[in-house]
This record gives sequence, C-alpha cells and structure tokens, in this order.
Amino acid sequence: MNALDDVIESFSRLPGVGKKSAARIAHYLLRSDRSLCERIARDISVLHDRIHPCRVCGAYTEDDLCPVCADPGRDQRIICVVEQPQDVQTIEAVREYNGLFHVLGGVIAPLEGIGPDQLRLSELVVRVRTGGVGEVILATNPTIEGDTTALYIQRILKDMEVTVTRLASGLPVGGDLEYADRLTLARSFRGRSSF
Amino acid sequence: MNALDDVIESFSRLPGVGKKSAARIAHYLLRSDRSLCERIARDISVLHDRIHPCRVCGAYTEDDLCPVCADPGRDQRIICVVEQPQDVQTIEAVREYNGLFHVLGGVIAPLEGIGPDQLRLSELVVRVRTGGVGEVILATNPTIEGDTTALYIQRILKDMEVTVTRLASGLPVGGDLEYADRLTLARSFRGRSSF
Repeated sequence: MNALDDVIESFSRLPGVGKKSAARIAHYLLRSDRSLCERIARDISVLHDRIHPCRVCGAYTEDDLCPVCADPGRDQRIICVVEQPQDVQTIEAVREYNGLFHVLGGVIAPLEGIGPDQLRLSELVVRVRTGGVGEVILATNPTIEGDTTALYIQRILKDMEVTVTRLASGLPVGGDLEYADRLTLARSFRGRSSF
Repeated sequence: MNALDDVIESFSRLPGVGKKSAARIAHYLLRSDRSLCERIARDISVLHDRIHPCRVCGAYTEDDLCPVCADPGRDQRIICVVEQPQDVQTIEAVREYNGLFHVLGGVIAPLEGIGPDQLRLSELVVRVRTGGVGEVILATNPTIEGDTTALYIQRILKDMEVTVTRLASGLPVGGDLEYADRLTLARSFRGRSSF
C-alpha cells in the first residue's frame, strides 16, 4: 500500500464512488496542481468543526440557527418534516416552499434498531405545541420506512390543532406509464384527482 | 458559502462527481465519524509529497523505481508503452502481462498543443537502444490520438532491432455485433484472424 493506494481506498469508501472512479479521481489529483489537494484536504478537515445541527430544525448550519430558521420572511406557520439534513437542500433548490423545516435525523426502522426515540420527534411536538403552526407537511421518502414514520407522526399530532399533510406520491412528471413500477402506479390510482 | 458548501464545491470539481453526488458525499462525511474526514484529508494532503514518477518507466511510485521495474522476475525483454500512469494499474490488474512498462504521459494531440516533444519518447528510445529489448507493445488507446501516437512511435523504432506490436482492437468480448459502432466493426474485419 502506497500513498496512491491510500487515496484510492479512502475515496472508494464514499457513497457512489467505486474502485474505478476512486482510481480515476486519485490520478486526477496527482495530475492537478497540489493546491487542489491542499484545498480539498482543508475543506474536509474543518467540516466537522464548523458544521452542526440548527438548534431549532436540525438542518446543518455554521451558526446557532440555520438560514431558513433565521429568515423572518419564511412562513412560520408551516413546518415541513424531512428525514435528513440534505432533504432540506433538495427542497430549497426547487424554490417552491417558503415555510420552515424539521429534520427527523432518520426514519423508524425496527430492523435497523431505529425507533421513534432516536428521531427528533419530541422536538417537533414542542414546536407544534408552542403554537403558531397551522400545518405540518410530512415529506419523508415514499418508502415503507418513510410511510411508517409519516403515519406515526400523524398519530402523534392527531389531537393537536394542526393540519397534517403528506407530499403527493405518484407518477413522476415526464415519466412513462410503461416504466412505472407497480407500487407507484397503484398509488397514482389511489391518489387520483378530478380534472 | 459555508463549510458544507465548500466541501460540495471541492468534490464536484473531481472527474465523474456531479453536484448531486458531491452533496451526497459531503452529507455522508458529516454523518460519519470525524476520523474518516481526518483520514481522507491526511491521505490527500500527502499524495503529492509521496508519489512521483518512476525513474525508468514513468509510472507512479513512492520509491526510486516502481514495483514493476524493481522486480527481477519481470520479463526485461518486453516494454509495453501506455499513455498514462493509471494504464499501468489497469493492465497489471488483468495479470496477463509480465514485461515492463513505459508511460508516455499523454498522446500526440496537435489541437491541444501536445507534440512528440512533450511525451517521454526520447526516454523510450534510450531504453530500446541500451539493448536487451526484443519487443515494444504499443498500448495507447484505440482513438485517433492513440493510433497517431502509436504510428509515430512505430516509425521512430523502425530502424532499430526491435519488434513493434500494437494491442488487438475489435469487438469487445461478450459484446453484440448489433451494438458495435461502425469503426470498431470495420476494424474487427480488417484485423480478422484465421481459425
């Protein structure tokens, strides 16, 4: 194992990077100016020191509050509940939603030993109970775990004065019936809307 | 721009890593133990200090000679000429070849301003002239530039007492005639062999 193999090994541990991609990246780094390596190394090494969860919503931020929670222009009456911090960035990129977020930090997954207690659920209940929240949008993924978690949250919030909604699930826009999987197609029937 | 965006920006500069993959990697690093970040940062930062071209063949190594050149068990009479250092690793992984290598460091590409002088060609001539070399295998890529470079080297070595060969080019094993491109199919006709 030399230093080149070390870098290949390191990169191939990252999600979506196989052994061949890792080798390609490592050789690219060697061909590039060393300042690129220095920059990447510095960026990675300060990551954990600088970034932490937002005190309110749990999204990643460098400050006490994340940019969304700190923005008085956001609609404080709506909370969108997501699984992971990166889901906040995904939704923000669409520029469709102007409310607040709440990051669960995962989903209920009994097989992986993740129960409701490991998620940021009590924090959500406190936020709703504090008042001023009219709607909670459940934006967990349309998977078994995501659906289960959404159902669980819906039950928790049932007796509180808040509307609980779930993101629409069905055929992707631009998709083709022929290539839709059975579950998606079935769900698009159940969720059909009138013209 | 916060530290998370910096990491995403850094990673998205790497080959084969788009913005979405970079975001996925950055969030993975944040979720993982910080020792992973420390390890990757260290591996990347020492890369340029530790790795340099082999004195003889130009492949990447930590030592004066690369493992292939330093191995007395390799067939010293054959030199396989490749474009880039990573090509050595690709060929080594197949375990089909037991000779030596010579890395050109690129191909002749007039449009990019790369002429024969920028390649490690004089080093190759010196190695062949020094004697003991019976065959030079040209293993540049089967592209216009790779073919041009192979032809150029063949002409340089023409008057020297050495057999010059080129890697076979044609239909990939397990491939399908239907999906072969015209150039590959044409070349597989020209290079056909008798049963």
